[in-house]
Formats: sequence, structure tokens, C-alpha cells
Amino acid sequence: MTNDPKDAVVLLSGGLDSTLTAAIAIENGFALNALTIDYNQRHRCELQAAHAVAKMLKAKQHVTLPLDLSRFGGSALTDDIDVPKGGVDKGIPVTYVPARNLVFLSLTLAWAEAIGARDIFIGVNALDYSGYPDCRPEFIASFTQTARLATRAGTSGTGFTIHAPLQHWDKARIVKEATERQLDLSRTWSCYDPTASGQPCGLCDSCRLRAKGFAAADVADPILI
Amino acid sequence: MTNDPKDAVVLLSGGLDSTLTAAIAIENGFALNALTIDYNQRHRCELQAAHAVAKMLKAKQHVTLPLDLSRFGGSALTDDIDVPKGGVDKGIPVTYVPARNLVFLSLTLAWAEAIGARDIFIGVNALDYSGYPDCRPEFIASFTQTARLATRAGTSGTGFTIHAPLQHWDKARIVKEATERQLDLSRTWSCYDPTASGQPCGLCDSCRLRAKGFAAADVADPILI
Repeated sequence: MTNDPKDAVVLLSGGLDSTLTAAIAIENGFALNALTIDYNQRHRCELQAAHAVAKMLKAKQHVTLPLDLSRFGGSALTDDIDVPKGGVDKGIPVTYVPARNLVFLSLTLAWAEAIGARDIFIGVNALDYSGYPDCRPEFIASFTQTARLATRAGTSGTGFTIHAPLQHWDKARIVKEATERQLDLSRTWSCYDPTASGQPCGLCDSCRLRAKGFAAADVADPILI
Repeated sequence: MTNDPKDAVVLLSGGLDSTLTAAIAIENGFALNALTIDYNQRHRCELQAAHAVAKMLKAKQHVTLPLDLSRFGGSALTDDIDVPKGGVDKGIPVTYVPARNLVFLSLTLAWAEAIGARDIFIGVNALDYSGYPDCRPEFIASFTQTARLATRAGTSGTGFTIHAPLQHWDKARIVKEATERQLDLSRTWSCYDPTASGQPCGLCDSCRLRAKGFAAADVADPILI
């Protein structure tokens, strides 16, 4: 009998949250199968970040899957719509990508079922976030039920567990937990709208939430040093 | 005030079922936005069929979206696994593609939300079918709930309706309904494993179910003439 770790599929964008989530998956004894979606996002540098993070965490496999959601439009992240820079507002901002997490989780499920994995990790959190509906616990719970009904593995009794370990953490805790684990956060990327010279804009929601987390955790952000 | 028809997104594989479903959407007053997924399926000729059907039905838009599910493997339709030819068995066959309908429905949802459509059509049926779990009514019902929680449109009260008009029809009825509507079924394609000369194999589950439908409806299949 072997003691090979069980496979998990982890959705890895290359940002802070998914990097910590991947590290937590490994810590919990899983082999890391990292899935990154190239959805033709304007912040394409997160794809390089995902690659660097997968390497850093010694992923068993890393798949970057092209899926051009700009064909559908409807979001500032894929369309010719300005990324808001005025601060995190209440409500769902134009950076919302229609059904993104449902599409991405469905793809992690497809890969998980294909390789015999029953555990999926996603770095959503619903505290310091942009108000996206597909980051909320009720969405994750509903997806778990649908995943059971959608799959061969689900109907045969061995359903899937969707782990969202950061679900109830604020950004400060996320930075602290990552720092305690000595994760090299200089490899991560969060900005939605990098400058022409490849620097974070500092003003989009994603930059602001990241900055808030580092400040509250009293840690310097290595990508800004 | 205009009387433009409301938009619907219809999942169009180019087969019998999705072609009839698209025609029913139009009949119900919807403008046809047809979505076809190029998932690197071995029966690539269905992509041409989808194109021909979209044209025949005068689709408002037809998007063929590349999404290479062969990167995940795990199915005879995308992998180097033989397509079974021995007849439709009980249980879920190796032509099952992990989580396919969940992935595809999630993509129709993404496009629907992006264009302001609230109606999605899918040609699943759970009577004369291959036993795929993601064709069953309980899956469609669960997806509807998850779609509401996953989207901006869902959380603001205007959820989505997933129409599966063929859900409880057998193949004979599907052929009859298509024939009554004078749909040119020579443009559709069902076979999973076409011969080298581009003919249907006649032996895969999809060919067998199609043949059963035509025979029971007492109609000649125009692609075999």
C-alpha cells in the first residue's frame, strides 16, 4: 500500500488568496494539481504569477487552460471598459465577470473527476472582497450540491468537497497566515490594471484590498519594494 | 416601444436534440444566440453541423468557443479510448465527459448574463439517453438554483430560466416534432466516431439512439440516404 498524497485540484489565479489556498491544500496532505484559466483577462501578468507560484509550491501538475471569456464581454476585466479606481464601493462593480467562479469551479470539477480527485480548493473570501456574488458561502454550498448531481463520481456516492479555507478571513489574516508560512508573496499578483511599465496601479479594488491587508497585518508588500 | 424578441442562449451541439431545442426557442418568441463548444471532441464534424444549423435557423449570433477539455482527459470523446460499439448499456459509459453539461451550462449562463438574456435552452433528455448524470431533471433544477446564487442578475432578483423542452421526450417524439417543423435534419450530426470517409459509424450509442428514434417515428434519416 502506498502513502501517496491524495490529489486535490486547486484554482490558482496567481493572487494572494489562491496562493495561500494552494499552500493550505498541501499542508493538509494533498498533492497540488493547480488549474489556471487564461480567460483573456486584461491583467495577463497574473498568468505568469500563477506559473511562478505553482513552481514555488512544487505542484504535481499545473494546467493553464485557455478559455476566451472576452468573446462574451460584459466585464471591465475582459472588455474595453475602464477599471474603477475610486475605491471599493458597495454593490457589484463592473470588474465582475459574468458567472466566472461557476465556470471556473465547473472546470476544476471536470479535471478533478478525470483524475479521480474528490477535493477542490478555491480561495474565495466574502469579507474583504469586491461584492462578487460567486464568492459567498451560499454559492459554494449550492455548487457542491450541483456538482454531486452533475457527475459520475457524485451519483456513485463519492461526492466532492469544495474547500474554501479563506471564506471567513479578512485580508489582514490572509497576509498574516501567508507570512507565517513564509510564502514568497513577491511571486503573487493582484492588480487588475497594471501600468504600461508592468507595475500595480495601486488604485483598483484589488490593489486597495491587498494594500489594506498588508497594512493591517503590519507587513510590507514585497511587490512594492 | 419595440417588439424585439427577447434573447435566449441555446447550447447547440449540432445534433438532433439541440437543433430541435433551438427551433423551439425561436417558436417561443426568442432571438437565437447559439453557443457551440469546441472541446476538442473526436467527432469534430458536429462543429460544422452546428454552424449549418445556426445558419438554417437564422441565429442572431453563433459563437463557437474553443475549450480544450482533452487537456483533462477521462473520456472516450476526448481521449485515446475506444468508443463502445456494442449497444446502449445500463450505467454511465466511457463516452461520459466529466462535468461536461455543468461546464457548458455555466458558459451559456456567462454569455446570457453578459447580453442581458434570462433564458437558456438545453436539449438534454433523460429517456432515450446514454445515462449521463448531467442530463437528469434533478441536475437541471440544482443548476438553476446555483445559477441564481452565482450571478449578479440572480442576486438582484431576476434569475434565469433553464428550459429543457425535450427533457421527457423519447427519440421517436423528438424526430416527429422535428419533422413536423420541417427542420432539415440532414444538417445535423450525432455520431461519436465517424469513419475515415466521414460517415456515421452506425454502432456508437449516439448512432443507435438516433436510429431508434427515426425507426420508431417511421421517418428515414436524411444523413443516411
